[in-house]
Amino acid sequence: MQRVVPEDLVALARGAAMLGTGGGGDPYIGRLLAEQAMRAHGPVEIVGLDEVPDDAVVLPVAMMGAPTVMVEKIPSTQQLTVAVQALSRYLGTTPTHVACMEAGGVNSTLPFVAAAELGLPLVDGDAMGRAFPELQMVLPTLNGVEATPMSIVDEKGNQGVLDTVDNRWAERLARSATIDMGCSAIISLYAMSGAMTRRSFVPGTLSLCIQIGRAIERARAEHQDPVRAAADRIGGRVLHTGKVVDVSRRTQTGFARGEASIDGVDADLGRRCVLRFQNEHLIAELDGVVGVTTPDLIMVLETDTGEPVTTEGLRYGHRVSVVVAPCDERWHTPAGIELVGPRYFGYDVDPVRYDRIPA
Amino acid sequence: MQRVVPEDLVALARGAAMLGTGGGGDPYIGRLLAEQAMRAHGPVEIVGLDEVPDDAVVLPVAMMGAPTVMVEKIPSTQQLTVAVQALSRYLGTTPTHVACMEAGGVNSTLPFVAAAELGLPLVDGDAMGRAFPELQMVLPTLNGVEATPMSIVDEKGNQGVLDTVDNRWAERLARSATIDMGCSAIISLYAMSGAMTRRSFVPGTLSLCIQIGRAIERARAEHQDPVRAAADRIGGRVLHTGKVVDVSRRTQTGFARGEASIDGVDADLGRRCVLRFQNEHLIAELDGVVGVTTPDLIMVLETDTGEPVTTEGLRYGHRVSVVVAPCDERWHTPAGIELVGPRYFGYDVDPVRYDRIPA
Repeated sequence: MQRVVPEDLVALARGAAMLGTGGGGDPYIGRLLAEQAMRAHGPVEIVGLDEVPDDAVVLPVAMMGAPTVMVEKIPSTQQLTVAVQALSRYLGTTPTHVACMEAGGVNSTLPFVAAAELGLPLVDGDAMGRAFPELQMVLPTLNGVEATPMSIVDEKGNQGVLDTVDNRWAERLARSATIDMGCSAIISLYAMSGAMTRRSFVPGTLSLCIQIGRAIERARAEHQDPVRAAADRIGGRVLHTGKVVDVSRRTQTGFARGEASIDGVDADLGRRCVLRFQNEHLIAELDGVVGVTTPDLIMVLETDTGEPVTTEGLRYGHRVSVVVAPCDERWHTPAGIELVGPRYFGYDVDPVRYDRIPA
Repeated sequence: MQRVVPEDLVALARGAAMLGTGGGGDPYIGRLLAEQAMRAHGPVEIVGLDEVPDDAVVLPVAMMGAPTVMVEKIPSTQQLTVAVQALSRYLGTTPTHVACMEAGGVNSTLPFVAAAELGLPLVDGDAMGRAFPELQMVLPTLNGVEATPMSIVDEKGNQGVLDTVDNRWAERLARSATIDMGCSAIISLYAMSGAMTRRSFVPGTLSLCIQIGRAIERARAEHQDPVRAAADRIGGRVLHTGKVVDVSRRTQTGFARGEASIDGVDADLGRRCVLRFQNEHLIAELDGVVGVTTPDLIMVLETDTGEPVTTEGLRYGHRVSVVVAPCDERWHTPAGIELVGPRYFGYDVDPVRYDRIPA
């Protein structure tokens, strides 16, 4: 068990934004909301997966929608609590733990709001070990856990509970509701026992986020390379360093979709890296050749500061480094690749791992 | 109290399809489903509004979607029961009565399925006295009754409960879900006490439907004019008699929208009537002049047989009569006109009543 205080949140949000692989929301907004809730209700305990009892009632909570919209339409802290309460009322149970669905600037910090307001511990882990754009794209799906019943809540006071035949239908109905609600909403879903949470979650994600954030801060303070420090912390490597020369972005079917082109500098001079994203970075191409694909992690950090850059934050002229790193190994099973591999997203290529250098 | 047996359903569905003003679904399909449920579970009692106790728990049930789709995608009888049960479970109450939201071939007959399967009486009335395309367009809205909590259920097994800030939001979120569910779904909503049902419903709609259906049958048998018999029964008049020469129809934003042109015959020779519809007929123009508009009733019947023709059943060459009749007077209040008047549907004209002959 570990107590997270407001002062930890800068590091946590920064590390989470990195693991969010471009998605998962803006760390600044997520951090402010979590800080506000903690100052009002006190610190939040995060508990390791091995400390969660078998019969715990774990209710994950997350923001759903287009990160481009989340930046302007900030959720109310109350929305989080309402989402968890709506689901627990529908289930007729009392939650013992709150949890994160994914790593991301918003989706790793917002659950702290619910935990603080409800006075519940937060599970130190998440359901992906990164961020993915659709709600069925979580490790619990691979274990047959049902996304629904799920609650969905907007900032105006509208709410709903969905109960669907499979997790793809949950995604479909919740996505339409999210679009109607203004392209972002708060959801609580994948209610799980403690035993199932242990089987289905990636352990230690929140502590890892804090460690990544601290590693970046330390490298800055010691005039070391913060990008390399962050990459080392997660066993990754720097794929490309350059300058953003083009970003094409559109909010489509409730997602932030687009491409970014990064022209190399220094050792990468003359090479171009193109990133293709749907909320998260899914494909990194080097000079027209697929270099790394989902499910492995493709992350963009500011070269000088190591600050993670979300897909909605990418701007012309940005000096950035592309870091790639391994995902949770369960994503590389056939079922995992079917759920989140490049072909699901419409790219007719085999998955390429972070450490395979194309010929 | 009146016992409705399967033999009554032909007349009921026919009369309901007429009051459905082109919408409310196909009477043939609605009748078959109700017959099937009654043969399995016995007849259904319909009870007058004055027989419903103040503390009754009335749960209306309806089909939502595009009538063009309902003809091909027939609901399962089970869906009706699931929708009522999902709402009553969410409310934590046990329904004492089932009710109809609108008059229509499907929406006046499907509630018989739920009533038969659940063994509950059906309220003899409805929430409009006709059909309208959007779910907030009911007299209970004028009395401040909330549409939600509402359940929504598809034939695949997906279901949801919505709880919204107002009835327009209920329409918006439920419409998106309906579209995702394949453009038709079963909903249960506007849960009301018996006292509120009495204040907010149009009394006697189901018995009126049976009477209209019988009047049409009798006129046919006696070689009288069935169109005039039906019009007389509801205090209406025949606006136009002719031949359908053009139908333009599109399934758009979950509705069946379009126009039909009817060239006059006999006394109407040389005149053209154009009907504009969104599931239901909303505007009847005569030679380019607005003749009658929503909220008054605009109905199309086969000239020879008096058989009501729904908007999705209109075909080139059809010999039809356009009958117009008064709506419930509450629709002509300022609040009623705001909710269902021509301007709401995008026609920049004042409402024209069924008995005002344009200059």
